[in-house]
Amino acid sequence: MFANGHVHSHHKHLKWSNRQPPVLTVSSGDVVTFDLIDSSNGQITIDSDTSSLNSFQLELADPAVGPVYVRDAEPGDALKVEVLFLEMGNWGWTAVVPGFGLLADDYTQPDLKIWKFDPEAGYAELKPGVRIMGLAPGADGEFSTIPPTVVGGNIDCRDMVAGSALYLPVQVPGALFSCGDGHAAQGHGEVCGTAIETNMKAKIRLTVCKNYPWVQSPHLQLPPQPPAPSAFPDKGHYATMGLDADMLQATRKATRAMVEWLVATKGLTRTEAYILASVAGDLKLAEVVDMPNFAVTMSMPVNIFS
Amino acid sequence: MFANGHVHSHHKHLKWSNRQPPVLTVSSGDVVTFDLIDSSNGQITIDSDTSSLNSFQLELADPAVGPVYVRDAEPGDALKVEVLFLEMGNWGWTAVVPGFGLLADDYTQPDLKIWKFDPEAGYAELKPGVRIMGLAPGADGEFSTIPPTVVGGNIDCRDMVAGSALYLPVQVPGALFSCGDGHAAQGHGEVCGTAIETNMKAKIRLTVCKNYPWVQSPHLQLPPQPPAPSAFPDKGHYATMGLDADMLQATRKATRAMVEWLVATKGLTRTEAYILASVAGDLKLAEVVDMPNFAVTMSMPVNIFS
Repeated sequence: MFANGHVHSHHKHLKWSNRQPPVLTVSSGDVVTFDLIDSSNGQITIDSDTSSLNSFQLELADPAVGPVYVRDAEPGDALKVEVLFLEMGNWGWTAVVPGFGLLADDYTQPDLKIWKFDPEAGYAELKPGVRIMGLAPGADGEFSTIPPTVVGGNIDCRDMVAGSALYLPVQVPGALFSCGDGHAAQGHGEVCGTAIETNMKAKIRLTVCKNYPWVQSPHLQLPPQPPAPSAFPDKGHYATMGLDADMLQATRKATRAMVEWLVATKGLTRTEAYILASVAGDLKLAEVVDMPNFAVTMSMPVNIFS
Repeated sequence: MFANGHVHSHHKHLKWSNRQPPVLTVSSGDVVTFDLIDSSNGQITIDSDTSSLNSFQLELADPAVGPVYVRDAEPGDALKVEVLFLEMGNWGWTAVVPGFGLLADDYTQPDLKIWKFDPEAGYAELKPGVRIMGLAPGADGEFSTIPPTVVGGNIDCRDMVAGSALYLPVQVPGALFSCGDGHAAQGHGEVCGTAIETNMKAKIRLTVCKNYPWVQSPHLQLPPQPPAPSAFPDKGHYATMGLDADMLQATRKATRAMVEWLVATKGLTRTEAYILASVAGDLKLAEVVDMPNFAVTMSMPVNIFS
């Protein structure tokens, strides 16, 4: 499909501000391509190892490219962000960073996993026998919200894939849309703090929806589930449940229980299990009303194990 | 399949206690059928209306039937609970009860919805044009845990369907398994406090898994997703996102945003929208690590709207 404009990776910025000058102006319904930079902003490369994390500068992380000014977008409108196409490179990374992540108290040592993607095979391996499925074309992306924001930066939602649409509340004239970094795979929750972080090219249609007052936070339109490819048929899920009167503690318990199960039955180290929980495990709120306890599940697709 | 025993609905109890005498003793691998009572314990009938809630006695709610003593089950083992078959009646109910539910502060008036099921059609209608799909045979059930419990009562997890298996930690000899009430449909979260509550017959296999120390809370084995029936093809989902530094508040925001969207675009009343969110909306933890904000989504299948 023809694109009406392109945003280069050198148009990156590290702060949200409504004074950030637009790098491109488009009309409602136009299609824009973006070169997205991985969340390390190039600090981690395909040759990096865990020692690279020692010099990691957090203030350089999570770059966004843009912003794009969309004509006629006004406060009270919603900006519809349709993800038409995503294309990623041939590698990605996942890190355990001390002080960061849902189980930061349990994991005090840094660790880095470099993933290499084989587009023919359609998966990446954590280790022999543990494959993360459905990379391209079902790749996940994160799409940062417009400034100045109360609906906040990286939404990191695994549902944002090619075929999805995101509705964002417009808060400044022109909306000033920028686009964050890409994820090759991520579970709901992203528990270790990082997904499979990767560079990505994105083709996106930006449309102004006039007078959508009900969009006060991100809304998402998600496409039907594609049937599982015959090479990787759906084998169901295995889920662990955490129960606690504090929802965050219930979430930690569900995640720890998944780590314990992976270590006990799949031969993973505790860190491998934490990384796998972050890139392939989904956190769901099974029950939020049977007081005093909340029930949170983490579920893992069975077909990733051979 | 032959059943090795049956638990009648008159074997109901309203307290968890390891002194509750077993009503049946079985061996590992045996199949037991249960007559499950709806969570109102018969206080709500097909002819009830909202005024029935005025005399509702909460202390009679959530009955379980059992317990069943499973030979050779010892602390340190897990009890595998396989749901082989579920059969429900021809009606169910959903209530908004003041003081109960995720948005109890927003909904102070009682309301009761009686659902009638047409097994031929395979759905129940909230109102013309809004259909809850996949009742029998994909009916949901809730399966209460063994006493004395730290893993707690009604888990109310919509993943527990025919074809699912639940692993529970055994804490007393014989496990003393009882079975709670059935849900015809429920979203992850069950936000208004009730699902489509219904009587149900359940056929369950109970198997002792010796020495499963990693099962310290409920674990679930979930079957592959059946393909959507051609009459109700998957049309994707619409999701709303709540963002807050408090996970419970983020959950409330996601739910309120879904209610607003249903009212604004689907012509539902606020109470109809809250009930629909409870029986068909799924709460997921999209992001739990990008401090200070948690991102929670509620997603609604599009194919319920005609």
